[in-house]
Amino acid sequence: MLGDPEKYAEDMGYFKGKPEAVVIARGVEDVRKTLEIAREKAIKVTPWGKGTSVTGAAITNGGILIDLSNMNKILEFSDEDWTIHVEAGVVLDDINKFLKPRGFFFPPDPASSFMCSVGGATSEGSGGMHCVKYGTMKDWVLAVKVVLPNGEVVKIGEPLQKNRVGYDLVHLMVGSEGTLGIITEVWLKVIPIPDYKVLRVLAFFNKEDDISRTIINLRKNRIQPEIAEYMDSKVLEALKKSFNIETEGVGALLIDIPEFSLEKLKESLHNSILVKIAENEDEKEELYKARSFAYLAIKATSKYSMSEDIVVPVSKLPKVFKKIRELEGKYQISSPILGHIGDGNLHPVITYDDDSKDRAMEFFKELCEYVIDEGGSVTGEHGVGIQKRELAIEQIKKHNGDEVLRLMKKIKDVFDDKGIMNPTKQVV
Amino acid sequence: MLGDPEKYAEDMGYFKGKPEAVVIARGVEDVRKTLEIAREKAIKVTPWGKGTSVTGAAITNGGILIDLSNMNKILEFSDEDWTIHVEAGVVLDDINKFLKPRGFFFPPDPASSFMCSVGGATSEGSGGMHCVKYGTMKDWVLAVKVVLPNGEVVKIGEPLQKNRVGYDLVHLMVGSEGTLGIITEVWLKVIPIPDYKVLRVLAFFNKEDDISRTIINLRKNRIQPEIAEYMDSKVLEALKKSFNIETEGVGALLIDIPEFSLEKLKESLHNSILVKIAENEDEKEELYKARSFAYLAIKATSKYSMSEDIVVPVSKLPKVFKKIRELEGKYQISSPILGHIGDGNLHPVITYDDDSKDRAMEFFKELCEYVIDEGGSVTGEHGVGIQKRELAIEQIKKHNGDEVLRLMKKIKDVFDDKGIMNPTKQVV
Repeated sequence: MLGDPEKYAEDMGYFKGKPEAVVIARGVEDVRKTLEIAREKAIKVTPWGKGTSVTGAAITNGGILIDLSNMNKILEFSDEDWTIHVEAGVVLDDINKFLKPRGFFFPPDPASSFMCSVGGATSEGSGGMHCVKYGTMKDWVLAVKVVLPNGEVVKIGEPLQKNRVGYDLVHLMVGSEGTLGIITEVWLKVIPIPDYKVLRVLAFFNKEDDISRTIINLRKNRIQPEIAEYMDSKVLEALKKSFNIETEGVGALLIDIPEFSLEKLKESLHNSILVKIAENEDEKEELYKARSFAYLAIKATSKYSMSEDIVVPVSKLPKVFKKIRELEGKYQISSPILGHIGDGNLHPVITYDDDSKDRAMEFFKELCEYVIDEGGSVTGEHGVGIQKRELAIEQIKKHNGDEVLRLMKKIKDVFDDKGIMNPTKQVV
Repeated sequence: MLGDPEKYAEDMGYFKGKPEAVVIARGVEDVRKTLEIAREKAIKVTPWGKGTSVTGAAITNGGILIDLSNMNKILEFSDEDWTIHVEAGVVLDDINKFLKPRGFFFPPDPASSFMCSVGGATSEGSGGMHCVKYGTMKDWVLAVKVVLPNGEVVKIGEPLQKNRVGYDLVHLMVGSEGTLGIITEVWLKVIPIPDYKVLRVLAFFNKEDDISRTIINLRKNRIQPEIAEYMDSKVLEALKKSFNIETEGVGALLIDIPEFSLEKLKESLHNSILVKIAENEDEKEELYKARSFAYLAIKATSKYSMSEDIVVPVSKLPKVFKKIRELEGKYQISSPILGHIGDGNLHPVITYDDDSKDRAMEFFKELCEYVIDEGGSVTGEHGVGIQKRELAIEQIKKHNGDEVLRLMKKIKDVFDDKGIMNPTKQVV
């Protein structure tokens, strides 16, 4: 089935490009045939899950775009093997809707989980709030069915809890951003919903420094939260303005914590000015409101907003906060900070309008380069896409060496010697 | 420094072979120089950690063997970033000895952890008892320093909790068994010792079938143990005979369980004939005795013993138990079963003497082929090595397709075009 190229011309990060043709795949055979033709005619191919990328990963100028969103069946679930087998177009939240009444859950939960596809999340190696404890997609994908650029359909990996046969090509596929082949099915690990009670804590602070110091204290005190989210003063202001959500101080931490770690957590929050604790689902929902509306609230403060995705070692958080504030002054750009602070993954949201776009891009570049120089990464969960190609290459050259980049390019050639798979994405 | 080839001529799985020369590396520069010379003269190179492989992975006939065990420094630990940076020769238990007083732990715990090296465990993608909850080495390695076969020294990966830049080559290195390069340093994630109390449960059963059904029940009842080990009647008999350890029935499960899941666990053990629960460290040590002496006890029953390493989906455990008993009859071979039963990873120990060696090998082959046909894997944590090369290739061809094997071989060529790195190991 063919789709309308106009409908695939922009992603959620404002990246634009119009494919020449869109194939809406009904099954793996459609994908296989399309790749066969594309290879023969040397036409580039870009896979599309739900278009929720913020880095241009699923955007193409010309070429064929394959929409996998109609391949959306949950194929098999085993409560004995703790695995679920799904088609690539299944929406991530639909997996958890299926699992919840059965007592299981699937931890990775990107902000777009209500609409993103599992194939997209796998290709992007997505993360989310629960990753501070449970890791990202890479920690949950056991195997994938892939249509290779030569039209061969293969299963990569084994849907087993353990396997040591052969090289680990599964993790090569996770995060490859459609540059090695098209993922049509995924086998995932799932785990039981915890037996212990999880409480939700919202703590407000009077100084930004106190917050990063608190996170470092949490780590030093060996506290393992289920989520650990940060909202700065600008986020709190925006929440008050747009949604009339009551806040205090200049920043807040939202932490989900197992009951058995609550006392340890409370001790570590001694710098805070107010601590709210939610015990039941309704109270938890109430405390979560601030975080759930945060991005919308920020978006309302300017014409454009770019949610950044830097990662640093937790020990370097205070330096990075300082740097962001310094850059805000230098470029006269406001950058509210949201983030998965527990694993050092911050989303400073760079806000701008048509007049300040150039300054915003300079802010972005200087921040990313600072992060690279501090040993961090320019992306923790959004991926490279078109947006960070140059910066990601710079990061690899500085942290890993030119030879590692050469290895990646050669691996790309092994899978895709004609270079038809989603070119100009990732670092290859 | 040169070593004595005689000292590197056998591993713990009776695989034999004598290197022509042994280099005892004092640092990365020794490794680099050795690989440079080896490449120039097209001499094969095999890395050696502590020689605890049971698959011949570190055994070589001729060529150069590089012993990394003297590179054994813990380089850096951060209680803020929850990472530890170590040289490849550090003994795995030494990491936990270092971490324990600091309140942290590193979960992968192969049976050889008291003497195996972290470089070996990384190259082999090793597992252990705690992997039923915490996963294997692949889930804990953030980055590695590698000397590539062309003599280039690179860091692969980022020592960060999250990173999405480039292809994931870290997981390509984990489990590559020295065929892609030599790992000289490793950055690992660590986690806090849990805040909750962990109890130890030893349950005895009257029927073998009841045990596999119990494990399936545990899974269906969504019980997440910290360890879940199985010992069959032959293991129990051997324990009684060699170590006078008191047992009951025809098999036992040893389970470490968080206090908050104990009641759920007890309900699921209704088939058992006796349940012992240990609360404090001394009692736990006492219950652990059986498992810790199990392999020694089995070894005492025959001249040779081969600890197998099959994995099946948990739902298929009853079928596999039946098959093992059937093969014991067919080949007149005794195969006590030990294993990490919670993740479907069994270690049937094939016992034999000089007369029954051929039958033992046929038993081994038929069992592995049965496992492949049932969708399982011939290795969960011991790796492929020399031992399972043919079987592993068969598994990939049957489960993944010839094309996946071709991809692996091409990736091997990308790293090692001269084919000098540990040839005849793994599937490439």
